Amino acid sequence: MKASLLQKARAKYQPKLPNGLAGVVKVREGEPTQSVGDQDEVKRLFPNTYGMPVIEFVPGEKRTAMKMNVGVILSGGQAPGGHNVICGIYDAVKHQDPENKVYGFLMGPGGLVDHNYMELTDEYVENYRNTGGFDMIGSGRTKLEKEEQFEKGLEVLKKLDIKALVIIGGDDSNTNACVLAEYYAAHNTGVQVIGCPKTIDGDLKNDQIEASFGFDTATKVYSELIGNIERDANSARKYWHFIKLMGRSASHIALECALQTQPNICLISEEIEKKDMTLNQIVEDIASVVALRAEDGNHFGVVLVPEGLIEFIPAIGRLIDELNDLLAAHGSEYKDLKEQEQREYILAHLSKENAATFETLPNNVAQQLSLDRDPHGNVQVSLIETEKLLSDMVGDKLEKWAKEGKFSGKFATLHHFFGYEGRCAVPSNFDADYCYALGASAANLIANGKTGYMATVQNLSAPATEWKAGGVPITMMLNMERRNGKMKPVIRKALVDLDGAPFKKFVEHRDECKRNTCFVYPGPVQYWGPTEVCDRETRTLALENAAKK
Amino acid sequence: MKASLLQKARAKYQPKLPNGLAGVVKVREGEPTQSVGDQDEVKRLFPNTYGMPVIEFVPGEKRTAMKMNVGVILSGGQAPGGHNVICGIYDAVKHQDPENKVYGFLMGPGGLVDHNYMELTDEYVENYRNTGGFDMIGSGRTKLEKEEQFEKGLEVLKKLDIKALVIIGGDDSNTNACVLAEYYAAHNTGVQVIGCPKTIDGDLKNDQIEASFGFDTATKVYSELIGNIERDANSARKYWHFIKLMGRSASHIALECALQTQPNICLISEEIEKKDMTLNQIVEDIASVVALRAEDGNHFGVVLVPEGLIEFIPAIGRLIDELNDLLAAHGSEYKDLKEQEQREYILAHLSKENAATFETLPNNVAQQLSLDRDPHGNVQVSLIETEKLLSDMVGDKLEKWAKEGKFSGKFATLHHFFGYEGRCAVPSNFDADYCYALGASAANLIANGKTGYMATVQNLSAPATEWKAGGVPITMMLNMERRNGKMKPVIRKALVDLDGAPFKKFVEHRDECKRNTCFVYPGPVQYWGPTEVCDRETRTLALENAAKK
Repeated sequence: MKASLLQKARAKYQPKLPNGLAGVVKVREGEPTQSVGDQDEVKRLFPNTYGMPVIEFVPGEKRTAMKMNVGVILSGGQAPGGHNVICGIYDAVKHQDPENKVYGFLMGPGGLVDHNYMELTDEYVENYRNTGGFDMIGSGRTKLEKEEQFEKGLEVLKKLDIKALVIIGGDDSNTNACVLAEYYAAHNTGVQVIGCPKTIDGDLKNDQIEASFGFDTATKVYSELIGNIERDANSARKYWHFIKLMGRSASHIALECALQTQPNICLISEEIEKKDMTLNQIVEDIASVVALRAEDGNHFGVVLVPEGLIEFIPAIGRLIDELNDLLAAHGSEYKDLKEQEQREYILAHLSKENAATFETLPNNVAQQLSLDRDPHGNVQVSLIETEKLLSDMVGDKLEKWAKEGKFSGKFATLHHFFGYEGRCAVPSNFDADYCYALGASAANLIANGKTGYMATVQNLSAPATEWKAGGVPITMMLNMERRNGKMKPVIRKALVDLDGAPFKKFVEHRDECKRNTCFVYPGPVQYWGPTEVCDRETRTLALENAAKK
Repeated sequence: MKASLLQKARAKYQPKLPNGLAGVVKVREGEPTQSVGDQDEVKRLFPNTYGMPVIEFVPGEKRTAMKMNVGVILSGGQAPGGHNVICGIYDAVKHQDPENKVYGFLMGPGGLVDHNYMELTDEYVENYRNTGGFDMIGSGRTKLEKEEQFEKGLEVLKKLDIKALVIIGGDDSNTNACVLAEYYAAHNTGVQVIGCPKTIDGDLKNDQIEASFGFDTATKVYSELIGNIERDANSARKYWHFIKLMGRSASHIALECALQTQPNICLISEEIEKKDMTLNQIVEDIASVVALRAEDGNHFGVVLVPEGLIEFIPAIGRLIDELNDLLAAHGSEYKDLKEQEQREYILAHLSKENAATFETLPNNVAQQLSLDRDPHGNVQVSLIETEKLLSDMVGDKLEKWAKEGKFSGKFATLHHFFGYEGRCAVPSNFDADYCYALGASAANLIANGKTGYMATVQNLSAPATEWKAGGVPITMMLNMERRNGKMKPVIRKALVDLDGAPFKKFVEHRDECKRNTCFVYPGPVQYWGPTEVCDRETRTLALENAAKK
């Protein structure tokens, strides 16, 4: 493996640790906890791991070495800093006793079930310090849900004498970690399970988890690119750029990028859902801003679009629901129709409201909704190029307005989608430190015999030495939700809070940013240099933490 | 204008100057020069500006203040560092005499013709030091070619008592600067014209110009993104990423990015043209690499595609030529045909060879070639999404091979196009220094009464203090080429030299990179930190300069 010059220099960076984890570690336990919802039901499902106290690590005096082998799993989509979580675990486990071993299960949770693993060594780990990516041990999307999987996993955990498993993942993976912890506790296996909060989407966040790792770096990379495109738009002064940003459900990424770069428009799915906006209203809103700016001779701008938008538009959501039912019921007779006949068939069979929505859609999107279906017969919403859909519809609207004498500007568009560019970026100082501390927390939770905990690091707006490391019982974050028709205990996804400080800050400035060019150009992530440039947390985190005070 | 934290910190950076420009500047003149080709014809066209000597600036002793107002124009596409050229001019001009004025003509060469300008002030200039973009005075694509334009420009130059005009642009803009210099000299206007070599494409390069500015930063930004995507590919291990890179003619950007990131495949248009490769051959080559890697269980990879590829494939070029003629001749009868009939009509009328090429094209591309035409009736090659075209065709080929039992892997693809992300990035230390030095060179050429020169800075692989600043008569770079049916004096575009050191280095490693995963992850541009990370020139420049020694 040939390392880049930056990677070599960056390998020397020693992540900062919170004071509570820097020397000898002592556990300070809080009061017993309750789940955020459905407390009786969650308690019933998790008799062995429910109600445990929140834990904080504070400086201690006496160190007792702990013999413990640890297994690590990376689960789901990549997020910058995953390697540093592993490095943090590795260093802390070896610090307990150099004879301790750390195993990586390969290509995600499947590695546990299939007994596919490797032992991590000093030499191997050195290659991955402060690097992006999940290639150190690979990741995967196998869901650990079945007892059969738990038992297969147990075989290899016992064989390797592994005391605890750390699962680094998003909300679903941490829910599964909690179920696994309960199972291993209920069956007296002696194996502990610890979770770590990962996701660039920023939707694993609650009273205990200030931020999931990766969000910081990924949003900084996207903001670098958005800023560069804004500067290009403002220099060439002839294009409207429609930029779609990764994130299927919540709009945290779009909101954070908007706070960093001040585009002319940023759509927030949660607001659109709350206001019950139609696609046509969204299009008219954008077209109005284009028209406003055209009055000032500014035929350019930048629009941010969250990837998950379509499903948050209530009218489209209702249309998709009815389409799924309709085409499931009339599948075969429908399939043999020609394109135009299909359209007519759909319009004839839909309810009046949904037919009206269907008619507003451009042909290619209507076709995608009525034709391309996944193996379960459902509309493949993720295939819809929302950024192009919107700009096409805005173009049509402006053409109509031009004929009515209400618009006389130009409207040329360019499209971008940013996602894969940021998931494996070199972690920022923040994510490098945060992840390393999360790993060290996880190791200390294990050394103290805990299971069913998520490693946590709080007070993240302070300097890293003042961060507070510890652990939170995952059961504390659970409530019951319907998944695939069944009620299940799950960690509640954190959507953008329309009463929260970040969204309020955005609303405060957005009208000014529509007509005027208020672009901000953040530039690339810096690892060396002035601390205000290198060590700054996200605007979301800063605003949320400031509001708590 | 709200500056980002990075922008504020970066504003304090003082670009390094070559020793020859740091103190009192003395001119050292070389021998008279000749144009690179068609010497008699170029000499005839440029009687006043032909044959002048190359100039180098060296440390001098006696300083004479020069009264001179200067006008500046940004021409064509954005390139990182343009603002620093202006800052370099501004500082040097004010250093001559604080009473001197610098004017920016707005939105490109059109600003000169339309008398649209602003005077630059200390306060205004401070906002743009070491920033990306061309928004300081805007840019545009108006071509300065007609006497009428020259005369309109002269009016405002005289009105503002401007001694010299600096045109910052690519090969065409510098050719036009040369024509303008000759015109103003021939008409004894007293106005000097100086050019500056700008373009991220890297195709303005020759014995005198080691690099055009912007190439360094733009390729570093693209390489950051490619590296991040490579790391994602290597972590998820399930996607082939096809990445198209900006650059209509030459493949310098793709080549430089390949040297920095070592993808599995990088297509070089110039090689494809030289080898007279067909689209089918290119597709088979890519499919073979996919199949090879699949044998090792690696169902992922990264392919770089230069934007201009299609036009360099000789068979496609010939097809497009015949299509243009065919449809021009049979326009009306053809237009009323249905889609399938159009296809048959074209196949029936094309020559055998071109019909065969046409038949290999996927439907949507065939349709783009036969339907969508620009106002001149020509095929709109730039609309073809080459990266999708290739991946579709590779997919079809692999499906065929699978049926024949020659391939049993998976092939899922993702697509990206990087261009606008890099054109306005914050300039690297290299581009910040290089551009500032180019600006200072331009100002010193003016102070020494030169016209028809391009500002140059050479020896760019050495530390900035050892760079050699000076000027080269633009006529020296000219030869006669056919443009729109007429022979014109132009600067020859520098395509990738298949015998040059950068391409040879790429070829040396590319076979290894096909089957194996040799990805390198360069990370984002750094402005502070270890010098080997922050101050490194491009691989292209380093290899070319090393080969000269």
